Amino acid sequence: MNKPLLLRGGRLVTMDGARRILDADVLIEDGRIKKVGRSDSRTVGQKPTTIDCTGLVILPGLVQAHIHLCQTLFRGLADDLSLENWLAKRIWPLEAAHTEDSIHASAMLGAAELLLGGTTAILDMETVRHTGAAFEALESIGLRATAGKCLMDAPSNPKSLREPADRALTESSDLCARWHGAAGGRLRYCFAPRFAPSCTGPLLRAVSDLAEQSGAIVHTHAAETPLELNTVKRETGHDEIAYLDSVGISGPRTALAHCVWVDQDGIARLARQETNVVHCPSSNLKLGSGVAPIPEMLAAGCRVAIGADGAPCNNRLDGFAEMRLAALVHKPRLGPEVMPAARVLELATLGGARALGLESEIGSIEAGKRADLIVLDLDGPHAQPEDGGADLVSRVVYSARAADVRHVVVDGRIVVRDGVLKTADLSKIRATANREARRLRRAAGIDG
Amino acid sequence: MNKPLLLRGGRLVTMDGARRILDADVLIEDGRIKKVGRSDSRTVGQKPTTIDCTGLVILPGLVQAHIHLCQTLFRGLADDLSLENWLAKRIWPLEAAHTEDSIHASAMLGAAELLLGGTTAILDMETVRHTGAAFEALESIGLRATAGKCLMDAPSNPKSLREPADRALTESSDLCARWHGAAGGRLRYCFAPRFAPSCTGPLLRAVSDLAEQSGAIVHTHAAETPLELNTVKRETGHDEIAYLDSVGISGPRTALAHCVWVDQDGIARLARQETNVVHCPSSNLKLGSGVAPIPEMLAAGCRVAIGADGAPCNNRLDGFAEMRLAALVHKPRLGPEVMPAARVLELATLGGARALGLESEIGSIEAGKRADLIVLDLDGPHAQPEDGGADLVSRVVYSARAADVRHVVVDGRIVVRDGVLKTADLSKIRATANREARRLRRAAGIDG
Repeated sequence: MNKPLLLRGGRLVTMDGARRILDADVLIEDGRIKKVGRSDSRTVGQKPTTIDCTGLVILPGLVQAHIHLCQTLFRGLADDLSLENWLAKRIWPLEAAHTEDSIHASAMLGAAELLLGGTTAILDMETVRHTGAAFEALESIGLRATAGKCLMDAPSNPKSLREPADRALTESSDLCARWHGAAGGRLRYCFAPRFAPSCTGPLLRAVSDLAEQSGAIVHTHAAETPLELNTVKRETGHDEIAYLDSVGISGPRTALAHCVWVDQDGIARLARQETNVVHCPSSNLKLGSGVAPIPEMLAAGCRVAIGADGAPCNNRLDGFAEMRLAALVHKPRLGPEVMPAARVLELATLGGARALGLESEIGSIEAGKRADLIVLDLDGPHAQPEDGGADLVSRVVYSARAADVRHVVVDGRIVVRDGVLKTADLSKIRATANREARRLRRAAGIDG
Repeated sequence: MNKPLLLRGGRLVTMDGARRILDADVLIEDGRIKKVGRSDSRTVGQKPTTIDCTGLVILPGLVQAHIHLCQTLFRGLADDLSLENWLAKRIWPLEAAHTEDSIHASAMLGAAELLLGGTTAILDMETVRHTGAAFEALESIGLRATAGKCLMDAPSNPKSLREPADRALTESSDLCARWHGAAGGRLRYCFAPRFAPSCTGPLLRAVSDLAEQSGAIVHTHAAETPLELNTVKRETGHDEIAYLDSVGISGPRTALAHCVWVDQDGIARLARQETNVVHCPSSNLKLGSGVAPIPEMLAAGCRVAIGADGAPCNNRLDGFAEMRLAALVHKPRLGPEVMPAARVLELATLGGARALGLESEIGSIEAGKRADLIVLDLDGPHAQPEDGGADLVSRVVYSARAADVRHVVVDGRIVVRDGVLKTADLSKIRATANREARRLRRAAGIDG
């Protein structure tokens, strides 16, 4: 891991403060970007491993700030269902049937897809049990991840997943002690209450305190559906965003997935408190939830990131598909000029970094940051012509595909080279995933 | 071309009347599917070329019933612009600047993308000049295409593209005589008035007659924006769909792209007359046009196909991206159960075949039909697990990507093998496309 790495000859979309696009080399040492610019033998101490990036495009790795790796094995098992059936008949029973082995297999499959598709960092919500097995998978496969055990203590939860608050919080704290900062800081813990209706007020308040004490972030869902909004209103008397704020779930160290049903007051509150909103456009369409008012949130100064959510409601974990859809989906309502490509690429890089509390460490290609980089081959006909004035950022957002990713570096380590995962055996991941998916399906009593 | 071809060992999504999914071989002779089932040496006369499809998925080739190949070179030159600026500042000047060489290059680039991504047949609208050059490209590269010269005779059109009706119709008839049925029937002509506001009533009536006489279809845009609707209403006193009908642009041999702004009367009329609607969800989002009421049209019995439209308003020509979006985009309005995967795959295969007037020839894998087939490798982690009950059609619509296409057969000819285009040199296509795009941009006075 200590040998320097040189990406030579690529075109860099740096996402630095000036949003510069440069023809430059990137020198990486000890997991960090040492230099962006022309590198010759004199400027390099130890001879680096060199990857020829001539003709290729280098981006900061994409960051997806809302993923459920534990659901990757449920892909395709819950399509075209109403949200109620989706949760009650599929997601709850399948999550309850998880074992350490299936959690590990699910994380490996999802992380492999993410890395091969150019996502280098995620914010992940696991299920209530076996979260350590997900961290073990993430440790070995090399993805940067902030992950947490799901918390569900309210009486309304299905028995198979409900846990008493004290036990759930103790396990969370133990996991935080074990994993927060592990793998040289690449892995971090988050406290992850499922969503307001599944948690009691005391649990949410305790989560806020624990996260504060441990320097961890809070990761939850908010305002995904009108039903959820109405439930919170009925049970607490508050709008959901205001309620979450009242129990301490707000601010720069909080990431709220979805935020589809947020009014002007809610948007103003999110902006004022610098709470991170995670836009999940595919998931919000597939479950029929709606389209989040992201352009309004950006205009109000909100922090916004993007995410694929879990495999059963997407069904890909594809940062490029989410970027493209985030650019497209708001235009019918607000006009074709909203959410231009450059803005969307910010959400998928800098916005994600900020949601993970890592804006000083990742999200752009600048000397001193951790080396999370992806290298794209945009020579395919779908991303051509390149030389007629087409903007490179537009090509990345509207034309590029996950399959265009050639090389991926996370924390200075080559995890994908020439489109091949280097940190795990993909055929073994596939075989294990299929075996565990069969077992889960039987255990959950699902006919397919 | 006479040597038989055998696709051995794949899993077939046949799209036949019973929507069977079979483990079977496909034997192809003289451009047609000879047999679907177990083939052994005794059932085959001449020893066939064999492609081992073990572990792979075989589909009917996707059909996209609204494409502008002449715009492929404009990809990325017109992003995040209002529709008025998009047309007036970019599309009109660029189309006017086309030469035979640039039309050919644009068609080759687009056709290469389409074939590599699993689209085997298209309905194409060219610009007003050099349509023969597009047919020459289509003839050589091997895509199945129905294409037509764009007709724009109304005084409101930009001078650089406007043509007198008689000259435009004479050239159309000449092109029809030359290309309708060429390449063994693989190429066909369509009459292609741009859209109602760009054409005079007499031209539209003449188009209807000419198409009838020559057995060709009519391909136009309809009801894409409220502005268009209002213009037609003001100028003709009719709703657009009713107006088109009154001049003979309706019925099974007509394909209307978009149909975003159609009310219940319009839907009933489209259904009654069996007019083909072409759903272009990415384009309708990117230009801010809206979301077409496709589920309502399907419920009313309308014929519906899908299409990517042109590269500048998408920016891909990707049948898988359009299928996925067609499945997702209607759910927030009508619920997650609308537009299930199986229905969407019908639009992209059988629906497209019908829009092209080729329902007896393509759109499904059945003995006797032309051999337009694609072979997918769904082993990638984004389409796994496969063996937990996930439905194969759901995997194709929600998870599969254009990049998963391994082999493509059109009219019995292998046009893509192992992901490589066999009928043209992709690096030459790219180089020519870039050279012509540079020239077009300068000629159109576009700064990029």
